[in-house]
Amino acid sequence: MSFILHPRLEADTVPVKNLGLSRLLMMNDRTWPWLILVPERADVREIHQLAPADRLVLIEEIAYVGEILERLFKPAKINVAALGNMVPQLHVHVIARFENDPAWPKPVWGVCPPAPYEPQALLNRLRALHEVFDR
Amino acid sequence: MSFILHPRLEADTVPVKNLGLSRLLMMNDRTWPWLILVPERADVREIHQLAPADRLVLIEEIAYVGEILERLFKPAKINVAALGNMVPQLHVHVIARFENDPAWPKPVWGVCPPAPYEPQALLNRLRALHEVFDR
Repeated sequence: MSFILHPRLEADTVPVKNLGLSRLLMMNDRTWPWLILVPERADVREIHQLAPADRLVLIEEIAYVGEILERLFKPAKINVAALGNMVPQLHVHVIARFENDPAWPKPVWGVCPPAPYEPQALLNRLRALHEVFDR
Repeated sequence: MSFILHPRLEADTVPVKNLGLSRLLMMNDRTWPWLILVPERADVREIHQLAPADRLVLIEEIAYVGEILERLFKPAKINVAALGNMVPQLHVHVIARFENDPAWPKPVWGVCPPAPYEPQALLNRLRALHEVFDR
């Protein structure tokens, strides 16, 4: 079976680019700089279900994305998480956190409803991400 | 500088064993089967600050621990997270989640106060973990 992005992930995000293993998505929530990596593998729910070679790529993609968020936004902390209680398809959140953000120091999930970007702000944010990810 | 376990992690957990890179700890909270990996590297806060060779070991240790929790407890989902907003020392939570657990489907942090194991239950749980991790 081939890879199909879970409809809930598709609805909540905008695509940024395809990395080697994962599709890189941006959460459409301007409260946090929030990216999501989805390994393009069918029927994988857990990190330990990935092939070892894919896992090695995934951790490098997590590090790459975390480092770029840190460079772009100077956050206090990067949060990395593969939860999947609501959307079982394996996906990894990489989120820039700030000491004055509305959830700090708690995790971001369920704290406040998503605040979608205004159209122009969305384009600007995507442009800024493309500038660094396509370099 | 050499590695010292953060006092907050030391207070909240009991040691299980040393893996290749990480110290494996069990959260002293009987609400969830909850393990924590702490790479034994000084002054590392983020996954992208680890050396690439250490990252490859870390993702394999995450997969190994997740697979063992799945085998032992048959959870609905494994949650993996490196947050660190409260304790900046890099540590990775690996948690077995169940559809009837008190936080499901939300993340576990901050939902209910930790419920420490009774002494005999703690020993039993540690014995069960040693049986599989030392095999």
